[in-house]
Amino acid sequence: MNIRFYNGKLLLPGKGHDFRIEEGELWVRGETICYIGDGTDTDRVCGENDVILWDREVDMDGALLMPGFKDAHTHTAMTFLRSFADDLPLQNWLYDSVFPREACLTPDDIYWLDILGIMEYLTSGITSNFDMYFFPEKNAQASIDCGFRTVQTSGLNDFGGSVELVEEQYHKVNEMSGLSSFIIGFHAEYTTSKDKMEGIAALAQKVKSPVFLHNAETALEVKECRERWGMTPTQLTDALGMYEYGGGGYHCVYMDDKDFEIFRKRGLTAVTNPASNLKLASGIAPIKHYLDEGIPLAIGTDGAASNNCLDMFREMFLTTALSKVRENDAACVPAEEVLYMAVSEGARCMGLSDCDCLAEGKKADLILIDLKQPNMQPENNIVKNIVYSGSKQNVALTMVNGRILYEKGTFDIGFDPAEVYEKANRIIRRIDREVKVG
Amino acid sequence: MNIRFYNGKLLLPGKGHDFRIEEGELWVRGETICYIGDGTDTDRVCGENDVILWDREVDMDGALLMPGFKDAHTHTAMTFLRSFADDLPLQNWLYDSVFPREACLTPDDIYWLDILGIMEYLTSGITSNFDMYFFPEKNAQASIDCGFRTVQTSGLNDFGGSVELVEEQYHKVNEMSGLSSFIIGFHAEYTTSKDKMEGIAALAQKVKSPVFLHNAETALEVKECRERWGMTPTQLTDALGMYEYGGGGYHCVYMDDKDFEIFRKRGLTAVTNPASNLKLASGIAPIKHYLDEGIPLAIGTDGAASNNCLDMFREMFLTTALSKVRENDAACVPAEEVLYMAVSEGARCMGLSDCDCLAEGKKADLILIDLKQPNMQPENNIVKNIVYSGSKQNVALTMVNGRILYEKGTFDIGFDPAEVYEKANRIIRRIDREVKVG
Repeated sequence: MNIRFYNGKLLLPGKGHDFRIEEGELWVRGETICYIGDGTDTDRVCGENDVILWDREVDMDGALLMPGFKDAHTHTAMTFLRSFADDLPLQNWLYDSVFPREACLTPDDIYWLDILGIMEYLTSGITSNFDMYFFPEKNAQASIDCGFRTVQTSGLNDFGGSVELVEEQYHKVNEMSGLSSFIIGFHAEYTTSKDKMEGIAALAQKVKSPVFLHNAETALEVKECRERWGMTPTQLTDALGMYEYGGGGYHCVYMDDKDFEIFRKRGLTAVTNPASNLKLASGIAPIKHYLDEGIPLAIGTDGAASNNCLDMFREMFLTTALSKVRENDAACVPAEEVLYMAVSEGARCMGLSDCDCLAEGKKADLILIDLKQPNMQPENNIVKNIVYSGSKQNVALTMVNGRILYEKGTFDIGFDPAEVYEKANRIIRRIDREVKVG
Repeated sequence: MNIRFYNGKLLLPGKGHDFRIEEGELWVRGETICYIGDGTDTDRVCGENDVILWDREVDMDGALLMPGFKDAHTHTAMTFLRSFADDLPLQNWLYDSVFPREACLTPDDIYWLDILGIMEYLTSGITSNFDMYFFPEKNAQASIDCGFRTVQTSGLNDFGGSVELVEEQYHKVNEMSGLSSFIIGFHAEYTTSKDKMEGIAALAQKVKSPVFLHNAETALEVKECRERWGMTPTQLTDALGMYEYGGGGYHCVYMDDKDFEIFRKRGLTAVTNPASNLKLASGIAPIKHYLDEGIPLAIGTDGAASNNCLDMFREMFLTTALSKVRENDAACVPAEEVLYMAVSEGARCMGLSDCDCLAEGKKADLILIDLKQPNMQPENNIVKNIVYSGSKQNVALTMVNGRILYEKGTFDIGFDPAEVYEKANRIIRRIDREVKVG
């Protein structure tokens, strides 16, 4: 498809972590951005006498075209547990509500629950996710069928799976489609034996992959890890040789100086999940400290059971606002840094270096932000407007890999929303019955 | 207008602070809800052989009709400073950016900036606000012209105004329209002389009004008040006789045991503003403690300069999620309590006892929540879905006083949005020039 966006603003990469906003147009050919400019120098893309046959010309009417958000940590199919067991102490939530119901999930359940999650991502301008859950091939299939881009990692732990299976998944999922990739990982230190962790380290070195895991989400997790191993999860996994090819951690709330030093030295990414950390009473991550140390940061929603929504606008606001109250400093973690995390650093840590910004030759993973809404006015500072007052309501269009999957509230993913909702409701009702009977 | 809502769900008052959800229909006649039921017992509203001529019949298609949100603390016209001066230390923000620009505001500016704010309220399902700003008559006029309901209080302080003027405003604004009312108040202890505070107390007793003020927003404010008066703002204002007819405080972050006791004994309302308290690095309010003491709570957005958006979904999520991390208790401040604050307690503290719930005879201030969106599925628990994953995207319709002012992204308030945006942008550009030249 050839698609031309014109008559709007473009959020382009600036110096360092900054952005610049210019009036202009952007052309998409197939999966790729082929032209960005003011429309006067298009010869370098098409010869002077060429005529491009546009499948679609989108009048942006002053809206802002920008790179899509990357949800850098999530468990998509957990949509079935949204609002199912909130306002409970963490242990009851996890052991009485979540684990028994997850055990009942079939691959087909995962497929439909993923599609529900993908729809939600699209409404929030998320063009790719970094997912960890059961049945990665099914998860990849759901994304591919919708046209959505997904990067997966393994949730390997002592309750299921093996390093051999992770290796098999690594190759399979990486080969399924250009929309699907896989990075080595496991659930967390507190759920995984040393044997398996050593196996993961060896596998990562063998296939030259980064490694990701839940890391230092709660104070208790770090305390117990110290009791078991005399060191933190970061220090242990580094000592086991996990990070020869980089990687990072999800949550990363409770870190000591040695942990920061390892993240800095290895170039590991701290993926922050602020809404989940609040709702599960885990804590507030030291975002300012990571920035001061030059440690890369990305942002994720976590799964719908703990958040409860897959909305990057909420996460962006929280990333800066929680830092301000944590550090008692209204100036820290400025909006520009947060937007850079949400679009560019997320892409980088997910291995999507061709989806990190609007530039010619990059993949067309982009969104259109409606600025003609009251929450975006006046236009004193568009980047700050997006981070501090942006909302799903402003997402006019979401394009992944050159295809418009969502526009003005309507999905074009090949599934009827009513059918997806019906499936999701049936799944949780069935599983709830199974758990109560079983 | 006679409007019939049918084929949907209704959020009705339950026991205590709970709600119950029932399938049904709701009829509006003029400004008032005249019927709630399943449609089989309509005789008591219209005689058996009567025919109601409907101006509009709204097929809710499974959506949820519920009372509108009450934004119980805001400075609406501060929309002009949205994203104008973020990521600054609090003192620079206030003294270098906000105060000099506020000094340039004309009554006409206020009018247009209010309309921008009212549009934003409507997109978030807010049907009334509790406003404090300059030129209350202009503010009231903007609301009346849009059909929006506003309750105002005075921002009296030592930089302008007098108790006599507040008395005049009280009578004038209360008499302007059924949509406009006024409650006695002043800005805050730290900006107001004892003389003026005594005058406000006497006026409140004279006209039998509650009193509201900014109270204990920052630790510094309370510390300095103690140094000046040997007591907290709550204790001082109580000692001055402010609360003979009730009232409450905005923010209420730093409270001691005596303050809680005064709030409890007097039935004062603590209006929490969680996003603003984060962004200005003020702190996290002790919501659980208020609940434990049985002190009424309401929720407000604060102004767009400090938040930066007027979105009750964000505030509701923060009210519970911040409490969870503050108390280290994932079970505290459940979603149902938060929704009760946002719709019912807000109304009560604003003197809008006829707008607090869906019931026959109440004012038709209501909103329609689209549940057929991915963030609202599956329907495990609709109230928790609203509080934890709800978004402006779900607001399908906002009705104030029996008039539909917003529906599916379109405003019916008598103003062209493009003109309102243009005015707002002109105002901030003009004021910014004035400040730089001046």
